[in-house]
Amino acid sequence: MPQKLSDEKIADTLNTLTGWKRHDTKHAIEKSFKFQDFSEAWAFMSRIALLAEQMNHHPEWFNVYNRVDILLTTHDADGISDNDIEMARKIEKYL
Amino acid sequence: MPQKLSDEKIADTLNTLTGWKRHDTKHAIEKSFKFQDFSEAWAFMSRIALLAEQMNHHPEWFNVYNRVDILLTTHDADGISDNDIEMARKIEKYL
Repeated sequence: MPQKLSDEKIADTLNTLTGWKRHDTKHAIEKSFKFQDFSEAWAFMSRIALLAEQMNHHPEWFNVYNRVDILLTTHDADGISDNDIEMARKIEKYL
Repeated sequence: MPQKLSDEKIADTLNTLTGWKRHDTKHAIEKSFKFQDFSEAWAFMSRIALLAEQMNHHPEWFNVYNRVDILLTTHDADGISDNDIEMARKIEKYL
């Protein structure tokens, strides 16, 4: 079972993850990405889809054309867990 | 340039499209879909991604695990156009 991280741990970790921030109201971290066009955005999403299945951890995400908004949370932990941090780090490598 | 459809035309068309409705506040039509799991949802989204590029008309959509919420609108027409209706009809064939 994934463990919920402490606020301090989350804050420390977010300092090392460019552009990721805590959601205003949800127990989640989020980032918005912009690409050249839909094709580029979709390629990025496709890599994340494979990652999600591999990790058995899935994002909440929104897309319109070249924009992708990603929100990561761990429902089982009712908070932000190492799974969210790991996924955010891997997503950054796809840029 | 796509033409904005009349309210009457939209209402008539929506009667023939199961589960699609007008958005409460936006000039758009929307439908929420549920699948067995992420894999099935992603397969559905992938077909829509190809369709979107083919039509050069892109959805606003949200996904979390097995759920896909799709909103269709035509920014160039500042409303709902035949492109949205055509896309909704094609999306239905992917179910």
